[in-house]
Amino acid sequence: MTTTRLESFSDGVLAVAITLLVLDLNVPHSDLAHALRTQWPEYAAYVTSFLTVGIIWINHHVMIGRLRAVDHAVMFLNLLLLMSVVVIPFSTNLMAEYLRARTGEHLAAAVYGGSLLAMGLSFGAMHRYILLGRHDLLAVELPIAQRRRIFARAVSGVTPYVVATAAAPLSPYLTLGITFAVAVFYALPAASTAG
Amino acid sequence: MTTTRLESFSDGVLAVAITLLVLDLNVPHSDLAHALRTQWPEYAAYVTSFLTVGIIWINHHVMIGRLRAVDHAVMFLNLLLLMSVVVIPFSTNLMAEYLRARTGEHLAAAVYGGSLLAMGLSFGAMHRYILLGRHDLLAVELPIAQRRRIFARAVSGVTPYVVATAAAPLSPYLTLGITFAVAVFYALPAASTAG
Amino acid sequence: MTTTRLESFSDGVLAVAITLLVLDLNVPHSDLAHALRTQWPEYAAYVTSFLTVGIIWINHHVMIGRLRAVDHAVMFLNLLLLMSVVVIPFSTNLMAEYLRARTGEHLAAAVYGGSLLAMGLSFGAMHRYILLGRHDLLAVELPIAQRRRIFARAVSGVTPYVVATAAAPLSPYLTLGITFAVAVFYALPAASTAG
Amino acid sequence: MTTTRLESFSDGVLAVAITLLVLDLNVPHSDLAHALRTQWPEYAAYVTSFLTVGIIWINHHVMIGRLRAVDHAVMFLNLLLLMSVVVIPFSTNLMAEYLRARTGEHLAAAVYGGSLLAMGLSFGAMHRYILLGRHDLLAVELPIAQRRRIFARAVSGVTPYVVATAAAPLSPYLTLGITFAVAVFYALPAASTAG
Repeated sequence: MTTTRLESFSDGVLAVAITLLVLDLNVPHSDLAHALRTQWPEYAAYVTSFLTVGIIWINHHVMIGRLRAVDHAVMFLNLLLLMSVVVIPFSTNLMAEYLRARTGEHLAAAVYGGSLLAMGLSFGAMHRYILLGRHDLLAVELPIAQRRRIFARAVSGVTPYVVATAAAPLSPYLTLGITFAVAVFYALPAASTAG
Repeated sequence: MTTTRLESFSDGVLAVAITLLVLDLNVPHSDLAHALRTQWPEYAAYVTSFLTVGIIWINHHVMIGRLRAVDHAVMFLNLLLLMSVVVIPFSTNLMAEYLRARTGEHLAAAVYGGSLLAMGLSFGAMHRYILLGRHDLLAVELPIAQRRRIFARAVSGVTPYVVATAAAPLSPYLTLGITFAVAVFYALPAASTAG
Repeated sequence: MTTTRLESFSDGVLAVAITLLVLDLNVPHSDLAHALRTQWPEYAAYVTSFLTVGIIWINHHVMIGRLRAVDHAVMFLNLLLLMSVVVIPFSTNLMAEYLRARTGEHLAAAVYGGSLLAMGLSFGAMHRYILLGRHDLLAVELPIAQRRRIFARAVSGVTPYVVATAAAPLSPYLTLGITFAVAVFYALPAASTAG
Repeated sequence: MTTTRLESFSDGVLAVAITLLVLDLNVPHSDLAHALRTQWPEYAAYVTSFLTVGIIWINHHVMIGRLRAVDHAVMFLNLLLLMSVVVIPFSTNLMAEYLRARTGEHLAAAVYGGSLLAMGLSFGAMHRYILLGRHDLLAVELPIAQRRRIFARAVSGVTPYVVATAAAPLSPYLTLGITFAVAVFYALPAASTAG
C-alpha cells in the first residue's frame, strides 16, 4: 500500500474525530448564563482535545512523509493509533461531565490523561518501528544518530501525559491544566513539531 | 507541508462540520404539524449556518490557493479557524433551542453571533499573516496595494457579525436575520467572494 | 475553482451524510425481539435513504465529470443540492419515528417525500444551468438535442418523488414503497444512471 | 467511473463509520468506577468493530487495487458493502447495551454476528463478480486458478462469522469472543490479508 492511501484514510478519521468533539458541547436546558459559566471545564477540555488532535495530525504527516512505502505492521500500528485518537471525544466528554458533576472527577481525569497517554504510546511504537526497526522503509536513509534523536524527541513528548495521568488522584484540574499547556505549547508556532 | 495536505484535511473537517448541522434538527415527539410550525428558528438557523460554512469553504480555497507553501504559523492559524468552524453546529443548536424555549434567547443569540465573529476573526488573522506578514509564501507575488485591498475586503466581511452580535441584547431575531442575510448575500452568484 | 475540488468536498459531505443515517437506527430499550419486528419502517427507510444518497453520489460524478470548470453559480447550486442531501438523515428519522408512533405519519411521510423532491429539484436546477445555460463550461461540447435529452431524463427522475409526496395523505406506506422502489430501480445494475 | 473515485468515496464512508463507533461509548451517569468495570463488553465490542472495519478498509483497497475500471454492478455491490459496514456502529451498540442489561443479549449478539456476516457476504459477492464474472475489469489478467484461490480465501473469511452468529443462542460472549479473535488475528502483522 502506498503512503498516500494511508494518509488519506488517516486524514479522514482524524478530521471526523476532531469534528465530533463538538458533540461534547452540551446545550444546557436550564438558566443559560449560569450554565455557560459553570460549563467552563467543557470548553477547556474541548480546546485541549481539539489542539491535541490537530497536533497529532501535523506530526502524523511528518512521520508518514518520511516513508517510501508501508508494510502490514505499519498499517496495524496506524490502526492502533487511530483507535486511540477516536476514543478522545469520549474521554474528553467523560472528564468534562464528571468535573461538572463534582463526583468521580479524579478517576475521569485519569481516564482522560490515560487516553492521551495511549495515543502518545501508539505514536511512539509507530516511530520506534519505522526509525529503529524497518528503517529500509524510509524514503531517505537517515544516520542512526539522527533516527535515535527523532525517536527520543517523540518519546519525550509522552512524558507530560504520564505526569498528567499521575496527577489525576491529586487534582483533576491539574490533569486538565497540564494537557492544556502541552497542547498550547506544541500548537504555538514557536515550538518545533514533536514529529 | 504542502498546501494540498492542508486543504484536504480542512476540506474533511468542513465537510463533517457542515453535515453535523443536521443533528441540530430535532425530531419532535409531540403533535408534528404544530412542532414543524414552531420549529422555524431551527430551520432558519440550519440554512444560515449551512450557507455560512459553505462560503467559508469557498473562501478557504481561494485563500490557500494563493499560497505555494505553508509554515507552522499558517497551520496553527488554520487550526484556530477550524476550531471556530467546528463550534458552529453547537452554537447553532444553542440559539435554536433557546429561541424555541423563549428564555435566555438574547444570550444564546449573542453566543451564536460571537461564534461567527470568532470564525471571521480567525479568517482575518490568517489573511493578515499571509498577505501582510509572510507574503513570500504567496505562489504569485502581489503588489502591496492589492494585498491591502484583499485584506480590507476580508476585514469588512467581519463587520456584519459585529453588528449581529451587538444586536442580540435588542432582539435575537435581528441577530438571526442579519446572519441569514449575510449568508444569502455571499452565497448568491451575483456577489463576489469575500476571499 | 477546479472540478476536482468541488467533487472532493461534495464526496466528503455525501460520505458523512450517508453514514449519519446509521444514527437513525435506534437501540430499543424494551423487549428486543418485539422491537426488531416493529422497527421495520426504520430499516426500510434506512435502506431507501442509503441507496438514494448512493445514487445521488453516482449521478453527481457523472454530472460534474462533464465539466471542465465551475463558476460561482455552479458552486451555489451545488451547495443547495448538498443542503438538501444533508437533510435526508433528519427526514428519514422523522418518517420512521412517526410511522412507528402511528400518529402524524401522513405529514411525516410528506416531509420525507418532500425532502427527496427538494433534492431532485436541486439536481434538476444544476443540470438545467449546466446543460441549457452555461454549456460553455462543458469539457466536451454536446449538441443541443443531446443536452435536452439528458436534462429531460433528469427531470423525469423527479416525477416519482412528486407522486410519493402526493401519496402521503393517502398512505405513508405508499410514500415509503414508491421511494424504496425508485431507489432499488436506479441502484440495480440493469437500470442506466439518471445522470 | 475510475477506481480512484470509488476508493475515495468508500474511504470517506469507512473513515466516518469507524469514527462513529466512539458514539457507542457511553458516558455513565452513576458511580464511575463501578460503571467502568461493568462496561467492559462495550470496550470489547468497540475494539472488535474498530479492528474489523480497519481490516475491511485494507482488504477493500487490495480488491479495488486489482481493477483497471469499474462498471455499474461493481458500484452497486460496493454500495451494498458500504451499507452493511455503516450498520456496524448500530449493531455494536445494540449488542453492548443488551449484554450490559443482561436481557435479550442472545438475540442482540445474533444481530451483531449477522451484521458482520452480511458484510462478509457483500465482500464475497463483490469478489465473486470481479474475479469470476467480469475478470476483464482486472488491471492485470490473472490465471483462473489464482482467481479461484483468492475467492476461496475471501469466502473462508466468512466462516467464523457464520460460527459466531450460530453461537449467539448458546452464549453471546462466545459471539463476542470469536469476532474479537478474528479481528485480532487479521489485524496482527503475522496474518496475511484476506483480500
